[in-house]
Amino acid sequence: MENKHLPTDEVRWFALGGLGEIGMNMMVLECGEDLLLVDCGLMFPESYMLGIDLVLPDISAIADKVDRIRALVLTHGHEDHIGAIPYLLPALGFPPIYGSGLTLGLVRNKLREHDLIDSAHLHPVRMRETVRLGTFEVEFFRAAHSIVDGAGLAIRSPAGLIVHTGDFKIDNTPVDGERTDLSRLAALGDEGVDLLLSDSTNVERAGTTLSEQVVGEAFNEIMPRCKGLVLVSTFSSNIHRIQQAMDSARACGRSIILHGRSMEQNCAVARQLGYLQVPDDALCELRDLRNLDREKVAIITTGSQGEPLSALVRISHNDHKQIVLEHGDTVILSSKFIPGNEKAIANLINNLYRRGAEVVYETTSEIHVSGHAAQDELKTMLALTRPRHFVPIHGEYRHLVKHAQLARTMGLGVNEAFVMGNGMPLVLSREGVRLDDEVETGRVLVDGKGIGDVGALELRDRRHLANHGMVTAVLGVNSRSGEIVYGPELLTRGFVPEEDSRDYLEQAAAAVREVLTEHSLEAISDWEELRVEVRKALRRFFNRTIQRRPLIVPIIMEL
Amino acid sequence: MENKHLPTDEVRWFALGGLGEIGMNMMVLECGEDLLLVDCGLMFPESYMLGIDLVLPDISAIADKVDRIRALVLTHGHEDHIGAIPYLLPALGFPPIYGSGLTLGLVRNKLREHDLIDSAHLHPVRMRETVRLGTFEVEFFRAAHSIVDGAGLAIRSPAGLIVHTGDFKIDNTPVDGERTDLSRLAALGDEGVDLLLSDSTNVERAGTTLSEQVVGEAFNEIMPRCKGLVLVSTFSSNIHRIQQAMDSARACGRSIILHGRSMEQNCAVARQLGYLQVPDDALCELRDLRNLDREKVAIITTGSQGEPLSALVRISHNDHKQIVLEHGDTVILSSKFIPGNEKAIANLINNLYRRGAEVVYETTSEIHVSGHAAQDELKTMLALTRPRHFVPIHGEYRHLVKHAQLARTMGLGVNEAFVMGNGMPLVLSREGVRLDDEVETGRVLVDGKGIGDVGALELRDRRHLANHGMVTAVLGVNSRSGEIVYGPELLTRGFVPEEDSRDYLEQAAAAVREVLTEHSLEAISDWEELRVEVRKALRRFFNRTIQRRPLIVPIIMEL
Repeated sequence: MENKHLPTDEVRWFALGGLGEIGMNMMVLECGEDLLLVDCGLMFPESYMLGIDLVLPDISAIADKVDRIRALVLTHGHEDHIGAIPYLLPALGFPPIYGSGLTLGLVRNKLREHDLIDSAHLHPVRMRETVRLGTFEVEFFRAAHSIVDGAGLAIRSPAGLIVHTGDFKIDNTPVDGERTDLSRLAALGDEGVDLLLSDSTNVERAGTTLSEQVVGEAFNEIMPRCKGLVLVSTFSSNIHRIQQAMDSARACGRSIILHGRSMEQNCAVARQLGYLQVPDDALCELRDLRNLDREKVAIITTGSQGEPLSALVRISHNDHKQIVLEHGDTVILSSKFIPGNEKAIANLINNLYRRGAEVVYETTSEIHVSGHAAQDELKTMLALTRPRHFVPIHGEYRHLVKHAQLARTMGLGVNEAFVMGNGMPLVLSREGVRLDDEVETGRVLVDGKGIGDVGALELRDRRHLANHGMVTAVLGVNSRSGEIVYGPELLTRGFVPEEDSRDYLEQAAAAVREVLTEHSLEAISDWEELRVEVRKALRRFFNRTIQRRPLIVPIIMEL
Repeated sequence: MENKHLPTDEVRWFALGGLGEIGMNMMVLECGEDLLLVDCGLMFPESYMLGIDLVLPDISAIADKVDRIRALVLTHGHEDHIGAIPYLLPALGFPPIYGSGLTLGLVRNKLREHDLIDSAHLHPVRMRETVRLGTFEVEFFRAAHSIVDGAGLAIRSPAGLIVHTGDFKIDNTPVDGERTDLSRLAALGDEGVDLLLSDSTNVERAGTTLSEQVVGEAFNEIMPRCKGLVLVSTFSSNIHRIQQAMDSARACGRSIILHGRSMEQNCAVARQLGYLQVPDDALCELRDLRNLDREKVAIITTGSQGEPLSALVRISHNDHKQIVLEHGDTVILSSKFIPGNEKAIANLINNLYRRGAEVVYETTSEIHVSGHAAQDELKTMLALTRPRHFVPIHGEYRHLVKHAQLARTMGLGVNEAFVMGNGMPLVLSREGVRLDDEVETGRVLVDGKGIGDVGALELRDRRHLANHGMVTAVLGVNSRSGEIVYGPELLTRGFVPEEDSRDYLEQAAAAVREVLTEHSLEAISDWEELRVEVRKALRRFFNRTIQRRPLIVPIIMEL
């Protein structure tokens, strides 16, 4: 399909990320000459991606069409929807970016950090406002979520009306009164929705997700009873949560200290745009802490996921210069245990208890609610929009399957609800939908400054090194006679303690010499074969004696 | 306290493992000349313990007293209570082992595998039976748990009565009718319990843990509706769960195949001892599968934790020779998502869905219940035993703290309920309790055949290798002139792709030569200093150019 334009009355939709994983959301809509991108997020590394900082969607599938991108439209400001922008925007040709006020405020911070702010074009859009982007007309509507100023999209095209829910829940008592726009959704349903793309994250949960207000009530119940210092940790993007924490703290006569770079940055943006209300005299600096009464302070901080270098983890190890916990202090972890982080968070909680603090967390208290719709809300979305076709999005494979099953219970059959994956295009026309040939997708790993150079082979080697350590075997070989004149000298890391194992390593070296004498060096025709023999000899020795398989790196020096 | 015997009317109690972690349970009671050990378990490695197979409690604190060990008493057959036996029994001097029938059956299997069966002395004990072990009298009483034949202990000593709950729940409808012996506990409470040691695992959960029967009901509801093949995965030690799965399967006209070595072994022991009831004609072999109707078979298998090499994971990757999933098959994960394994299990579920199976798991179905008491049951235990003193056991730090808090709500004050850690002895006498000097405890890491040789340094190196890979720099130095005559030649693994990075690595080598020329080799007095300079030069280069920190191994060869 390269360089071939689609018919102008068809829309080709596919995901570059976000289907089959929770993260790196990015979608493409194609109609005639025009491309429209929805979201551009990153994913946090899986545990086997050793040493990797973050993961980006591979944009090869559209690399030769970037001049046709009319715009990048953003649903909301979470990392899995905007985090890849600084890395991909140049390669995408700096398309204009459309999104809500706070979303663009967060994007602006990222672009500044990466020195891209001068090349970018940001266009704030209000709720219920429509923008024309090439063949597409995109209307933003309010979607309540765990970040302020989230939106869903109603995308009108020659092929029909596509509704993208954004990340959403149906919260009837949101903190800022901004409910998910059910009346717009009902009206769109009346108009006729040809394709619904809906958030599958919480489809495993029965019923309805609790309202954000519940957490405010929990804060109001807990904080008045706290005697010493209070720390509240939450995601710095959850402005409503921070608002409620601040309100409760102030109601107890506590000043507020914001701690953590992203916490300070995000709150600054939110206050500037009017999303976070707190008077200046209610806020203090961290350095003031030692002059204040502990029971008159609440510190709002990051680190709720037990991230190794975070402030909260350092506090839990008594390793933070300014914040030292005492018996009677309270730490409120107002956040989810993100899958994969459970152990780190458990360790954090254990260590906070060791410091003498009382810890409040989601297992034992209603101190966090999800930002994603549960089964009943997902059914309500389907009922309001009554789509002709439905593709579950924003979930791992099982979430997408279960969301499609949910749709079946509401009458959408196998030709109407589709479980798709990244790179699987759906073509929408007035006649209906059809599948199209798969396009290239993938994950680009970022490690330090390197983007995409750590691949499967390097990860495999890192895993080998991680589990078994390494042994380097240095041999000096006389280049004329082929005789071994030096070594093998063995050096190890992460395998056995080098100090205590000299005898053992000498035995290993002897095993190598034995094998090489046997094989007779004349039979070995090149250095590569010699390396293979050395590796084999050592592998056998280590496996037999100690049942371990270190990564073996033979080094042959011609002398 | 070495070699000094305690007064004969005092009992010194301490834990070598199990307090501050869930795993490697092992306790010591000392009275006069006698030592009594309770349990001898292993712990599964934490995620930072790269390449480690399992973790054992360090027994240094009793190494010089093993001749005084009267017995090792076992509460039940889970790995965290018996798993360390094959590794520690010789060092402990092969003390006689007392436990229930099934517990000793599982121990026997382990001892056979490690060729220790001939040196061990195993003594089966019945419930409500008392055995005299030196100064101690130990009575076993039934404790319902997620393994058959579990027990708690009433230990009578000159200092008083100590009750150890074992791992327990108060299940009023257990599958085999064997309830936790509440009447014995009440009677012991009447007698006067001086010290209660109680299972803290589920203290974060309010209310009561559901009965095992609930899972049987779930099986009976789910299985009749299954069309194709049915796989049930659960822990091979949970005989009751396996019994219920078998009963449901047979009620649907399905034959049963047991799959997985530990599943086959444990079921064999359980059938032999009469704990598992299934007629021979209901069982089939895996090789028969291809000759049977899929909807007339249920396979009971291990692998519920997404363990990389397990049968279930291989099945989910379509990588199992005999078991191939088809659309319409059902996989029932009748097990807990053990903390730390959530991602592996999520991936397993996703992949099973990709194979076309429907998956039933604890998030969406009552297909698993815990084996540990929740808050109300823990309070009932305290109410029945009415102990003078209380030490929460079997939990991470937060569990122990919360269990002590629970006891406070029932009137046990700070001098009665103690949060202890491994190696912190409590001395019980007729007068009361006091704390004693801490003893040495620790974790011994097992990797392959090596026990205890992988320590903190090796783990740190493995982590470094895991996150950044490695670079070896080989230099040949003229031993007389100190000139570099060879290299530096750089080899890498897990860092950058060696193939595509020759230029980059040549730049790195050049950076080293530059630094060494500057520093002038006369100034470098020994090879260690040279290694340091090489490492520094490379570290700076890599950090500046690519912001990565591989483990650097300089190798200097004198030529």
